[in-house]
Amino acid sequence: MNKTQLDPLDDHFHDECGVFGVFDHSEAANLTYLGLYAQQHRGQESAGIVSTDGHQFHSHRGMGLVADVFSKSALKRRKGKRCIGHVRYSTSGDSGLRNCQPFTYEYAHGGIAMCHNGNIVNAPELRHELEQMGSIFQSTSDTEVLIHLVARSQGKTMRERLAEAVMRLRGGFSLLVLVEKRLVGVRDRHGLRPLVLGKLGDSWVLSSETCAFDLIGATYVRDVEPGEMVVIEKDSIESIKLFEHPEPRFCVFEYVYFARPDSNLEGKNVYQARYRIGMELAREAPADADLVIPVPDSGTPPAMGFADAAGLPFQMGLIRNHYIGRTFIEPKQSIRNFGVKLKLNPNRELIEGKRVVLVDDSIVRGTTSRKLVEMVRKAGAKEVHMRISSPPTKHSCYYGIDTPDEDQLMANKMGIDEMCKALGADSLAFVSFEGLYRAIGNPRSAHCDACFSGDYPVPIEAPRSPQLSLLHFTNKRN
Amino acid sequence: MNKTQLDPLDDHFHDECGVFGVFDHSEAANLTYLGLYAQQHRGQESAGIVSTDGHQFHSHRGMGLVADVFSKSALKRRKGKRCIGHVRYSTSGDSGLRNCQPFTYEYAHGGIAMCHNGNIVNAPELRHELEQMGSIFQSTSDTEVLIHLVARSQGKTMRERLAEAVMRLRGGFSLLVLVEKRLVGVRDRHGLRPLVLGKLGDSWVLSSETCAFDLIGATYVRDVEPGEMVVIEKDSIESIKLFEHPEPRFCVFEYVYFARPDSNLEGKNVYQARYRIGMELAREAPADADLVIPVPDSGTPPAMGFADAAGLPFQMGLIRNHYIGRTFIEPKQSIRNFGVKLKLNPNRELIEGKRVVLVDDSIVRGTTSRKLVEMVRKAGAKEVHMRISSPPTKHSCYYGIDTPDEDQLMANKMGIDEMCKALGADSLAFVSFEGLYRAIGNPRSAHCDACFSGDYPVPIEAPRSPQLSLLHFTNKRN
Amino acid sequence: MNKTQLDPLDDHFHDECGVFGVFDHSEAANLTYLGLYAQQHRGQESAGIVSTDGHQFHSHRGMGLVADVFSKSALKRRKGKRCIGHVRYSTSGDSGLRNCQPFTYEYAHGGIAMCHNGNIVNAPELRHELEQMGSIFQSTSDTEVLIHLVARSQGKTMRERLAEAVMRLRGGFSLLVLVEKRLVGVRDRHGLRPLVLGKLGDSWVLSSETCAFDLIGATYVRDVEPGEMVVIEKDSIESIKLFEHPEPRFCVFEYVYFARPDSNLEGKNVYQARYRIGMELAREAPADADLVIPVPDSGTPPAMGFADAAGLPFQMGLIRNHYIGRTFIEPKQSIRNFGVKLKLNPNRELIEGKRVVLVDDSIVRGTTSRKLVEMVRKAGAKEVHMRISSPPTKHSCYYGIDTPDEDQLMANKMGIDEMCKALGADSLAFVSFEGLYRAIGNPRSAHCDACFSGDYPVPIEAPRSPQLSLLHFTNKRN
Amino acid sequence: MNKTQLDPLDDHFHDECGVFGVFDHSEAANLTYLGLYAQQHRGQESAGIVSTDGHQFHSHRGMGLVADVFSKSALKRRKGKRCIGHVRYSTSGDSGLRNCQPFTYEYAHGGIAMCHNGNIVNAPELRHELEQMGSIFQSTSDTEVLIHLVARSQGKTMRERLAEAVMRLRGGFSLLVLVEKRLVGVRDRHGLRPLVLGKLGDSWVLSSETCAFDLIGATYVRDVEPGEMVVIEKDSIESIKLFEHPEPRFCVFEYVYFARPDSNLEGKNVYQARYRIGMELAREAPADADLVIPVPDSGTPPAMGFADAAGLPFQMGLIRNHYIGRTFIEPKQSIRNFGVKLKLNPNRELIEGKRVVLVDDSIVRGTTSRKLVEMVRKAGAKEVHMRISSPPTKHSCYYGIDTPDEDQLMANKMGIDEMCKALGADSLAFVSFEGLYRAIGNPRSAHCDACFSGDYPVPIEAPRSPQLSLLHFTNKRN
Repeated sequence: MNKTQLDPLDDHFHDECGVFGVFDHSEAANLTYLGLYAQQHRGQESAGIVSTDGHQFHSHRGMGLVADVFSKSALKRRKGKRCIGHVRYSTSGDSGLRNCQPFTYEYAHGGIAMCHNGNIVNAPELRHELEQMGSIFQSTSDTEVLIHLVARSQGKTMRERLAEAVMRLRGGFSLLVLVEKRLVGVRDRHGLRPLVLGKLGDSWVLSSETCAFDLIGATYVRDVEPGEMVVIEKDSIESIKLFEHPEPRFCVFEYVYFARPDSNLEGKNVYQARYRIGMELAREAPADADLVIPVPDSGTPPAMGFADAAGLPFQMGLIRNHYIGRTFIEPKQSIRNFGVKLKLNPNRELIEGKRVVLVDDSIVRGTTSRKLVEMVRKAGAKEVHMRISSPPTKHSCYYGIDTPDEDQLMANKMGIDEMCKALGADSLAFVSFEGLYRAIGNPRSAHCDACFSGDYPVPIEAPRSPQLSLLHFTNKRN
Repeated sequence: MNKTQLDPLDDHFHDECGVFGVFDHSEAANLTYLGLYAQQHRGQESAGIVSTDGHQFHSHRGMGLVADVFSKSALKRRKGKRCIGHVRYSTSGDSGLRNCQPFTYEYAHGGIAMCHNGNIVNAPELRHELEQMGSIFQSTSDTEVLIHLVARSQGKTMRERLAEAVMRLRGGFSLLVLVEKRLVGVRDRHGLRPLVLGKLGDSWVLSSETCAFDLIGATYVRDVEPGEMVVIEKDSIESIKLFEHPEPRFCVFEYVYFARPDSNLEGKNVYQARYRIGMELAREAPADADLVIPVPDSGTPPAMGFADAAGLPFQMGLIRNHYIGRTFIEPKQSIRNFGVKLKLNPNRELIEGKRVVLVDDSIVRGTTSRKLVEMVRKAGAKEVHMRISSPPTKHSCYYGIDTPDEDQLMANKMGIDEMCKALGADSLAFVSFEGLYRAIGNPRSAHCDACFSGDYPVPIEAPRSPQLSLLHFTNKRN
Repeated sequence: MNKTQLDPLDDHFHDECGVFGVFDHSEAANLTYLGLYAQQHRGQESAGIVSTDGHQFHSHRGMGLVADVFSKSALKRRKGKRCIGHVRYSTSGDSGLRNCQPFTYEYAHGGIAMCHNGNIVNAPELRHELEQMGSIFQSTSDTEVLIHLVARSQGKTMRERLAEAVMRLRGGFSLLVLVEKRLVGVRDRHGLRPLVLGKLGDSWVLSSETCAFDLIGATYVRDVEPGEMVVIEKDSIESIKLFEHPEPRFCVFEYVYFARPDSNLEGKNVYQARYRIGMELAREAPADADLVIPVPDSGTPPAMGFADAAGLPFQMGLIRNHYIGRTFIEPKQSIRNFGVKLKLNPNRELIEGKRVVLVDDSIVRGTTSRKLVEMVRKAGAKEVHMRISSPPTKHSCYYGIDTPDEDQLMANKMGIDEMCKALGADSLAFVSFEGLYRAIGNPRSAHCDACFSGDYPVPIEAPRSPQLSLLHFTNKRN
Repeated sequence: MNKTQLDPLDDHFHDECGVFGVFDHSEAANLTYLGLYAQQHRGQESAGIVSTDGHQFHSHRGMGLVADVFSKSALKRRKGKRCIGHVRYSTSGDSGLRNCQPFTYEYAHGGIAMCHNGNIVNAPELRHELEQMGSIFQSTSDTEVLIHLVARSQGKTMRERLAEAVMRLRGGFSLLVLVEKRLVGVRDRHGLRPLVLGKLGDSWVLSSETCAFDLIGATYVRDVEPGEMVVIEKDSIESIKLFEHPEPRFCVFEYVYFARPDSNLEGKNVYQARYRIGMELAREAPADADLVIPVPDSGTPPAMGFADAAGLPFQMGLIRNHYIGRTFIEPKQSIRNFGVKLKLNPNRELIEGKRVVLVDDSIVRGTTSRKLVEMVRKAGAKEVHMRISSPPTKHSCYYGIDTPDEDQLMANKMGIDEMCKALGADSLAFVSFEGLYRAIGNPRSAHCDACFSGDYPVPIEAPRSPQLSLLHFTNKRN
C-alpha cells in the first residue's frame, strides 16, 4: 500500500503563483479573497493576504486552499481598504510557510508588503552581492532579494527606490507592492508573466488573470505593459515606463495550459485560442479516425476545435472524478494505470471499436500520456491517435513555471516517432509553431516559447537550477 | 458578510447514498475505500467502512469525503477479507455521526453490519410497532428498523431472518449486510435503487454503480434484480427471489442526473442515454439559435446531443471552478448571482451577441436556473433558450432522493410558460416522457418517474415527510 | 524511539466516570460544563452533555478533555434548562465514541437520556437475556442494557419503569436519567459509587463529588442514599427507596485515591481523611528516618500526616511537571526510569544523604513504585522507607474502577517482605484496615474494600472479566 | 458568557523563554525535545527546534506546548547531531509564528541559527541604525538585530563576528548560536538570565536550567559566566571572556518564582532558597495564626519554611485543578471569584474558623491576591494574614520578563498598609531585601532586583516600553 501524490496528472507544468490587489475599497480583504479564489488554479499549496489601513499591516498566510486558509474571522481581522494577496504552488512544512507570500518587512522608510508571480533569474547573484554587503536572508524567495534592493536604494521617493530595485532584476515576474499610501504593480521588461488592471466602482484592482474580475464584478481596463510600473494612490494612478525598450515576450504557455479558459490574455480569449489551436492541429495533422476525445479540462477546447475542423464526432470519452483529495491509498497489488484512473475513467461504451483521436495540451515526462493511451486502448479503442495542442516540450522554464529538468522531458530525449512508439500510440502529432501563433493571432516574436524552442529571452547563467531549494538552508561556507 | 452554503447549484437533487461490498479479498478494506471513492458523487457528507475477519467487526466512520475520513493507518486497522462501505449525503454534528453508516449491532445470533442506499417508506409505522414491543432506537436511520426486525425474527437461519425482515419493508432501497461468514445484497421489490454484482479475481463485489468496478479493475457480472437477495459465502453464491412478482420500476432520475456518466445502469450507458435525451429534445423543441452551451457537468452530454441533432455549434460557454471549498465568505455588497458565479463563470467572448441554447438536467426550485439565465444574458447573449433533459419536476421523491417539499418545486406551482417568464428565458422546453424513454430505450412502465409524474409505485402514507429529522430526538410523550 | 503512554504513573487505578446534572436553570449547559470540569480527574478521555427544553434532546459528545470537547458555540447549542453530563476514562476511536455518554434513545414513551458512573456486574447476563428476546445492541456500555430494561418494562409511569429496571441491576453505579419533565438520580443498593444532591438558587443539582458544587457556588444538601431514587420535577423532589434493606458499602478507595481532596464524601472531608491515614500509618509503622516526602498529589496529605505524627520534617522532594502532554517521544538509548521522570523529578539537594520516608497511596503493579524507589536512591537517599496509605491491593474491582487483572497486582502475588525486596526499599508498610477506618471515622462494615480484602458485596460470576471489550464487536455465533 | 483567559493567576510574571542546545549527539533532536519539555514552565506559547548535520538546517517551529508542536515524524526529520531549541511565551497568530525561535538565516558566511532568552534594551536604537544602512526586518525579535550585526561585522572568524556583535548589545540575554561546525552559548555581561553547561557522555549540552539535565541524565558542569562566550567544536570547548569587568547581576526573581524548584541556579537549590525565604519571612513578620497555607505551587516551599520557623501547622488549604485548558466558558451570571476558582478551590474543612497565613510569591496587579483573600475568607477563615516571599514589586522588568507597566503594579501605587486594606487582608508583609538575600546566601550586589528596587543595572532609555509590539508592523514614515 503506497501513498500516491494525489494529482495523478502531476507531470504537467505547475504555474507558481497568482496575485491580486485592491486599492481603497471598504471590503478590500473580502475582494482579495475572492480574487484569489478565482485564481486558485494558479497555486493550491499556500495562500496569503496582507491588508493595511495605513498604520499597520494585517497579515494572514497559510498552507492550503484559499477557502481553507481563510476563515470568516481571519478575513474580518484583515482590516484596511488596501490589500494584496497571493496563491502559490509550494513545498510544505516550516520552510514552506516561511516562503508563503505576501512578505511584510520593515525598513528605514517604514513597512512594505510584497508578493510576486514568477522567477528572478539573477536572484542568486544579487543575493550573493547583498550578502557580501551584510544582508541576511530568512527565506529562499526572490522577493526577499528585491526588498533588500529597495532598502539599500538611495532613492528619495518610494517609486525611485522601487524603480531602481526592479531595474536590477532579470527574469519573468509580475509584482504587487503595498506601502502606506500606495499600491504598486510592476511587470518585468518582457512581460513574461501576466498582470491586468481593472476597476470596481472607484477602486482599482490588479490581478494575474481577468477571471478574478468576472467573479467580483470588476471591469477590465487594460493589461499592465511589459516594463511598466503602475503606482496607484488616492485620486491618482501613474504609469512609469521603466525601460526604453521593453521587448514584450509574453509566455505562450499561459494560452496553452495555465490560464483559465474564461480569462482574456492581452485582450484575447484563452478558450477560443485553444479551440483554434485544435483547428490548426486538425489541418496540420489530420487523423483517419471515428471520434475525438479530450483529456479534460485543458484538452477540451482544442479537442472540440480539432473535431469541428476535421468533421469528426466529439465526445467526453474520459470522465473526470471531481472529488480528488490530497492523498490517496493505493492497494498493494497495483491496479493498472492506477494514478490516472483516480482522476479519469474511460467510457468504454463510447470508445469501444473506435479509432480515437486523443487531444491533450502537452507531454512532459510522458508517464501520464503513456497510461492514458493504454487506458483508452484497454477500453476498446481500435486505434489511438494522440494530438498535442502545443509544440514538443523540450526545455525547462526559468521564468516562473515549475518544470522538470530537461533530462526528464520526453521530447528532449526523443524524436516524435520514438515518442509515439514509447507512448504506444498509433500516431502522434504536435501543433507547429506557425499553427500555434496563427491560432493565437500574434507574431511569434511577441512571445516567449523557450520551453518549446530553447530560445530564452533572458539569458540563464550556470548553475541552471530552475529553482532554489525551498526546503532547507544550506551552510555554504564559514 | 454572509456564509453561503458552498454548492451554489444546491437546489439540485441529492442522492442519499452509495454502497460497496467485497467478499474474501486480502485487500478488502482498500478496495472498499476505492469503491466508495469512485462513488463519491453519491454522497459527500460522511463515509464509513466495516470489515471483518470473521471474529470481530472493525468499523471506521466519519464526516467528510472518503479521502479525508480514511487515513492509511485507519484503513490498515480495517482488517479482514470482507468489507462493506457507505457514502452518504447527511447532516452534520453529533447526530450526523450517529447516523453514519454502516451500522454494527450485536443481537442473539452474533454481530451484524448493515448499510443501505434509499428510503423505507413504512419505517415510521414499523418503528412505532417495534417501540410498542419494547425496542429502543438510537438513530433516526431506517437501517435501525430493519435490524430490529431481523433480531426479532423467529427465522432459523440468517437468510430466513433477513428475508422475513426485508419483506416487511416498503420503499426503495439497496442493502448490504455483513455477517460472520456471509455478504448479502438485497434490492427492493421494485428495484428502485441500483445495485450491481461484479467479480475481481475470485472475489465477489457489490456496488451501487459500475464506475466503482472500473477503478478497481473488477468485471461487471449483472445487476442484482428487483426483489432479489444475493447471499455470498465461501465457494458459493445464492440468489433468492423474495417476491413472486417483483414489479421492476427503476428510478429514471439515475439516468438523468444521479449516476456517473461512465456508469452503466441495467447494462445501458448513462452518458449515451443523456446524449440521446439531448437529441430527442432537439427534435421535440428546436430553437432558432447560434450556439448550444451546457450547464456542466450533467448538462454536457444532452447539450452535445442537442447540438449534434440540431446542427448547431456546441461550446463550453460556462467554465466551472474546480476548487469549490466547503464554506465561502460573501462580500457585504452582494455580488450579482454570487452563488452561481462561485462555481460557474460565463465566457463572454463565446456568448456575446449569440442566441444561446442553455441545456440543464432539471429545474428544481428555479433559483439557480434564474441566475444562470441572467448571467448568460449579462455575458451578452441576445437570446437564452432553456432546454431541460427531463420532464418538469413536480413531485417529491420518497425513495431515497433528498428533494424539497412539493410546494418548493417550481414546476409544481407554475406552468411552463409561467416558468419561462419567471426564469427570464426567451423559451423553455422539457423533454417529453416519450422522448425520455425512447432515448433510454426502455418502456416507461419499467421505471419510476414519480418526481415528474406523481405516479408513486409504493404508496406513501401521511405524514408525507420526505425525510425524518436527523438532527435531534424528540420527546414525544411520557 | 518509542511512543510512551503519557501518564507514567498509569499503573494507578482509574475511576471510570463522573456525572453531573442540573434541573431547571437558565444556564444548565454552562453549569454542567463547569460541573464536569471540576470533576475532570474522574475521567479525561471523553466528555458529553445532553440538554433538553422538553421538546428535543441536544447532545454533544467527544473524545478529550471537557475544555477541548466543548466550544462556546457547542455549549450555546445545548439549549434547554435541564442537563446531564458525563466524563469518562475510555478507549479511543470509533467504538470509543460510540460508548461516549450520555446516551440518548427513543422508545415507546418518548426520548430518554442516561449516563452513569460504575459497573453493572450482571450486564452480560441481562444482555444475553435481552438478545434472546430480540434486543439489539450498538454499544458495549451497561447503560444500553438498562435502557432496554426500561423500554421493555410494563410499568405505567416512568418511575415505575425505571425502578423496575434498576432493581434488576447488580453492581456499583450512580445513574442520571433525563426525560422530558424530570431529572432522576439513582444510586445502587450498596451506594458503591458516590452521588450528591445540591441546590443552586431554586435549581437542583446532582454530582459525583461536592467539588463541582464549590466551583458553581451551589450548596451541598445531602448524599443520595444507597438504593435511593431521587425524582426531580418542577416544584417537587421525591425520594423513592428502591430496597427495603439497602446495605451501604461505599467504596473506601474514593477516600484513599479517587476523590478530589477538597471534596466531602458522606459529609467527611477527603483531605483530612488522607492526612489522618498518614498519622495512623506513622503510629503503626514508624521509620527511623530524616525526612518524609510524598509522591504527589494523592500521597501529599498522608505524607504530611505521617510527618506530623512522627515528628519528622516534611518536604516536596519530588517535583511534578505540570505540562504532561498526550504522547511523548522517548529517546532510543533509554533514559533510566524515563516514564516516571517525565512526571516527577527528585530534588537531590533535599534528599542527598537522608533516610527518606516515601509516602504513596497504593501499589498496583509495582512498576512505578520500583522506579520511584530507585530514582530517590539515585538522588542520594541513604535509605528509602516506603509507606502506603491503603492496605495491599490484592484484588480487582468490578464496581466501576478499571484495575488490572489480579495476576497483575503485585500484592496478589507477593508478601510484604517480598514486595519490599522487589521494590528495592529498605522497609515497606501499608496502613492496616483498623488504621484506615479509624482515620476515616466509619465502621469497616459500612464500606466496600474488596480490592484490598476480596470481600465483594455483590457476587461476581464467571467470566470475571473486569470490563467488556470496548473496542470491537465480536461475532459470537451465527 | 465571556471567554476568560485561562490562567486565572495570570497577573503573575511570565518569563519569556527557555533554551536548550546539544553538540554532537546521535539523538540531538530527541534530547532537545526533552530539554525543552523539562523547561516548559519558561514558555508555553511556542516551541522550535533547529538541527544540522553540517550541510543543512532542519527547522520545525509551532505555536503550542512542546509535546503538541513536535510529532514523532517531525522529530525524525530534525536530522543532524547538533541542535538548538527554544520555548517561548508569545502572542498568537501569523506574526506570533513569525517571531517563533530559533531563527535561521543565510548570510555571506553561510547559514546561522539562533535563539535567546531575554531582552536587548538597545535593540530599537540598533534597529534604527541598521535600517538606515539598508537592513530590512521581518520580525520584531531582538534576535534579528543581533544577526544583522553579525552579518555586517568585518570580523574574520565566526567568533570575532559574534563577539563584535554581542558586545554592542545591552540588556539581559542568554543566547545559543548554531553554525556549521560549532555550538555557541553566550551570556550577557551581567549574567541577568541563566545559562548552564552540562555533559552527556561525550556530548556537551547547554540549558537555561539544570532540571533539563536531570531529565536526560546529563551532568551539570558549571554555569556559563556573565559575559562569557562558550564555543563548542569537535574535540574542543573554548571559553572567551567578552568583557574585562563582567559585573554579575543575576536576576533574583528566578529564585523567587521563575525557575523550577528542582533546578539549581549558580549551584544553589531553588526549592531550598524558597523554603529559607519563608523562614526569614516568619522571623521578620510573624503572625498570630492557627494555620499556614500556600498559594500553590510557587508559594508552597516558602509557606513550609514559614510554618516550620513559626511552629505553625502547614496544610494544602487550596487545591489546584490540574486540568486547566486553554480557554474557558464563563457563565453569564458571574460566579464569585470565578477566574481563581477555576484553578484553586479552598478546602473549607481545613480553613473554617482558623486564623490563616496565606503565603504567595509576589503581588503584581493585586487582582488575584484580592480574590484569593476573599475566597479563603468565604471558606470560613477568621483572619487572613498575607505573606509574600519577595519584596514589593514596584517596577517593570526590561531584561526578559514580561511585566505590566509600572502604573499597573499595585505596590507602585500604594503603600503596604493601603495594599493590605485593598486586598481585604488582616495583615500583609513582604520579605525584606536583607531576609531575601540572607535566604539565598548571596550579597545583594551580586543580583538584579530592579523589579523590587528600581535599581536597573543596564540603563533604559525612553521610550520605556518593556516590549516591542509583536502583533503587527507599523508603517512609520514613507
